[in-house]
Amino acid sequence: MTPSVVADLDEEAKEGPTMELTLTLDANSKKSLQTQVFDQVRSLILDGRLQAGMALPPTRVLAEKMRLSRNTVMIAYERLAAEGYVETRGTAGVFVTSIPPDDLLVIRGSTSGIQSSETTVHLSDEPLLCFAGSPGGGGDRPHLDFWPGRSAASAFPLQIWRRIVSRLLANEPQYFTDYCDPAGLPKLRAAIADHLARSRGMHVTMDQIIVTAGGQDALNLIVSLLRTYTRQLCIENPCYLGASMLFRAETIPIEAVPVDGEGIRTERLPTTRGNLLYVTPSHQFPTGVMMSLSRRLALLRWAEDTESYIIEDDYDSDFRYDGPPLTSLAGLDGGRRVFYAGTFSKSVGAGVRMGFAVVPRAFWDEARMMKAQMSNGQSWLEQSALAEFIADGHFDRHLRKLRIIYKSRRDCLVEALQKTFGAPIISGHDGGLHFVWKLPQGMPRARNLQVKARAYGIGVYALSSGSAFDFDDSAPDNMLMFGYSSLTEAEIGRAIAQLGELFAGDEILNRRRRDFPGAGAGNVQQTRARI
Amino acid sequence: MTPSVVADLDEEAKEGPTMELTLTLDANSKKSLQTQVFDQVRSLILDGRLQAGMALPPTRVLAEKMRLSRNTVMIAYERLAAEGYVETRGTAGVFVTSIPPDDLLVIRGSTSGIQSSETTVHLSDEPLLCFAGSPGGGGDRPHLDFWPGRSAASAFPLQIWRRIVSRLLANEPQYFTDYCDPAGLPKLRAAIADHLARSRGMHVTMDQIIVTAGGQDALNLIVSLLRTYTRQLCIENPCYLGASMLFRAETIPIEAVPVDGEGIRTERLPTTRGNLLYVTPSHQFPTGVMMSLSRRLALLRWAEDTESYIIEDDYDSDFRYDGPPLTSLAGLDGGRRVFYAGTFSKSVGAGVRMGFAVVPRAFWDEARMMKAQMSNGQSWLEQSALAEFIADGHFDRHLRKLRIIYKSRRDCLVEALQKTFGAPIISGHDGGLHFVWKLPQGMPRARNLQVKARAYGIGVYALSSGSAFDFDDSAPDNMLMFGYSSLTEAEIGRAIAQLGELFAGDEILNRRRRDFPGAGAGNVQQTRARI
Repeated sequence: MTPSVVADLDEEAKEGPTMELTLTLDANSKKSLQTQVFDQVRSLILDGRLQAGMALPPTRVLAEKMRLSRNTVMIAYERLAAEGYVETRGTAGVFVTSIPPDDLLVIRGSTSGIQSSETTVHLSDEPLLCFAGSPGGGGDRPHLDFWPGRSAASAFPLQIWRRIVSRLLANEPQYFTDYCDPAGLPKLRAAIADHLARSRGMHVTMDQIIVTAGGQDALNLIVSLLRTYTRQLCIENPCYLGASMLFRAETIPIEAVPVDGEGIRTERLPTTRGNLLYVTPSHQFPTGVMMSLSRRLALLRWAEDTESYIIEDDYDSDFRYDGPPLTSLAGLDGGRRVFYAGTFSKSVGAGVRMGFAVVPRAFWDEARMMKAQMSNGQSWLEQSALAEFIADGHFDRHLRKLRIIYKSRRDCLVEALQKTFGAPIISGHDGGLHFVWKLPQGMPRARNLQVKARAYGIGVYALSSGSAFDFDDSAPDNMLMFGYSSLTEAEIGRAIAQLGELFAGDEILNRRRRDFPGAGAGNVQQTRARI
Repeated sequence: MTPSVVADLDEEAKEGPTMELTLTLDANSKKSLQTQVFDQVRSLILDGRLQAGMALPPTRVLAEKMRLSRNTVMIAYERLAAEGYVETRGTAGVFVTSIPPDDLLVIRGSTSGIQSSETTVHLSDEPLLCFAGSPGGGGDRPHLDFWPGRSAASAFPLQIWRRIVSRLLANEPQYFTDYCDPAGLPKLRAAIADHLARSRGMHVTMDQIIVTAGGQDALNLIVSLLRTYTRQLCIENPCYLGASMLFRAETIPIEAVPVDGEGIRTERLPTTRGNLLYVTPSHQFPTGVMMSLSRRLALLRWAEDTESYIIEDDYDSDFRYDGPPLTSLAGLDGGRRVFYAGTFSKSVGAGVRMGFAVVPRAFWDEARMMKAQMSNGQSWLEQSALAEFIADGHFDRHLRKLRIIYKSRRDCLVEALQKTFGAPIISGHDGGLHFVWKLPQGMPRARNLQVKARAYGIGVYALSSGSAFDFDDSAPDNMLMFGYSSLTEAEIGRAIAQLGELFAGDEILNRRRRDFPGAGAGNVQQTRARI
């Protein structure tokens, strides 16, 4: 990259006045390219050179002109939007806002109640993905963190794992120096196939499974595999950030399809052919909704009718507390149109980086080749240890133990919210590792509460932040996500008590507290997300 | 996918007569899609419906029509070409050959000398990537295998590794259950930066390093990162199969630039802007050539002049036996245009799946985000163990030990070839884990020798097979690759003695044996590859 590159920002803007302007990027700077783009566009707005209503160039156009990756420009634009400098108007484009943005950045360290004015707040210090925190994940992790999807550190089966690892190191060390099948160790694939048959109603063989580095690698594998088949990407909305990042990095159009209390609204799916759809039927991320059977069947019909493929991300289905789980989409589908992504990050541990993809049999050779092309397989020791852990029955015992721990943490959190805030409207607490609290009408925006809580060392998350993403900038910002699996009951109690003090000045919460004094957990109201 | 799809094979063919024809793919078949394409096109040729000189549709066209991934079609075409049914004519396309292909498949189990007629032989049972063999890699591994790039199993530092792993399991098990920085553990990145400064003349900080799953993941990361910057991909030829697969999966045009005795021929590089070039300057894969300093400098100038980026794959630079290594390209470049890929697969072990990318500082945030998007980082235990292994000085000691082992295996192989085949012309034996034997003129094609040897349990590899790839189908097929690092001296001796018997009937080799009786290793002739 030359030190100075000129981009005409006025090209392809669809409405509003535009002007030509110049960005100067320095590839040798200590600042990242996205920060340079952010800084310079912000300066242009603050200088008045870019005025309210003016359009920024589409991300792809700017990326091509400046020879930047599209991700870089998107992240820069998202930061500009998060800080209130610009706003997205549907498909029309990104426009400079009319509100002086610096006024919006006021989150002061006041100890009194929440700010009642509805403002957009500074979230750019929040970690962008689920790597927030340690070790070395960047950004200070809140002291009491309800980040969703972390497993219980104290429950890790250390003694058993250590015994297995020692045995492997003694007996099979030759595999340290060898390439293994990029699809994964056969014994691990066999163990996973067994587990899926018992727990998810999926009758698959080991020759449909690719072992991956956690669920994200499985998603990346499937998207890469189906890229050339795909004319349109579809995704439930709101959704998992990691999936949205993969989709947004493609050059294929994306349709974000809203979710209601039964899951993705299938009647809103495109009728054109050749779609690739991402869904989380077991426990919609982030809303926690379980997709109804009729929607599941409608999805499979739609996939057949439109020659589309479906990615089923079953990230936390090992955990269901109330009632039996529904058969997975992949189980209903019988190996035709559903690609399944699973992970051991919630059950064994995210630091083990183990997950898997299940693909229709006819795609397996390609998928294996794709995995070879991407990373040539996973580490032998982790794979081998996990295979023995599952095959010897430890995994099932460990899941039973975790279900008891997580259920009791969930119950504790529900009760604490109940006691502190009156009958909270929660969603998605039947299973998984997190649920959602729908804030009463009139409460401040969820993002504001998030920032406020964060200042006191408590991590709670709006549905457009943390590891969740919302394609709809104008969606009501009235839900907070609580991941409860990595906090002890004592920690949960402390955190909610502190949140109670923090929000003590809020009128609406106080009224609810008076109206619903000390109601039991059974009295919790459940919501159908976004209905 | 519907059960029957019609593809007009005559579209976009550039020469020769064509006809319309039909492929019927079954997504529910047990056969992979690529095998279905291969089988059906082969049948059409054998039936006479596709005749000599007719053009197959371009891979992209067929992939789009049949809704297949391009890889699938390319692999099917490559198998057809490897078996002699079709041939590539430069950029004109792929054409049905005029030689009845079944006649070419004759590799009989005769014990007498090699076949003297020059035929194309059946290589489709050969493993396509470096995962050939165990555990579960598919395909039988030859008993005595000169596959390049495997480390010595017996040399793995098992005692030390076991001690480190035990200590980690005792002291830091909480990291098993946590997401870590997707860029990698800070202590590992710091250890890698130190090692690069000492061994490769690279002055980089830990904030330029992304820990990856071996070198392949590093290459994939860099290609993904620079995709939108890139107008043309350039690659040295012949080249590493894994890099060629990544490039060929992109929709960006590829320029294959030939290699001579000084490395890539820089004068053949395109003068247009926005290229991404893949090179292996330390030990060109597969030819083993070390790039001269003048070529290195010319490459860096070219990158500046054309605003291009360079991937330096330094896959085996830890091993140099004769003379000091040249500073890496990345070291000369000073963090501007060179992205560096390194691996611990050759030094610690491929089963550990550890490698890394070094990127210019301005790209690090993006690269870290890309790694999060791809797989969200590597497993904690391997990273942590490797970090301690390096930081405590074990890695340097281990490298010294390996260099002695590999050098003595190399010497043994050179001497055995010498004794058995007269003064062999070899290339690339100064360093790395493999070298190349240029066959005397008049000898059978390298691929034929490969298949012949394979039938006797010996793995040697032509430059267009195994983990090497050649974009030029008409390149002289007169080199055999020998990876010597994973075979003991006794095994090397046995393998070459057997090869001697196998090729005993060959006139040319016999004449060389008479002309160069028992010449010492010092007498080995070195070649400038392809000159």
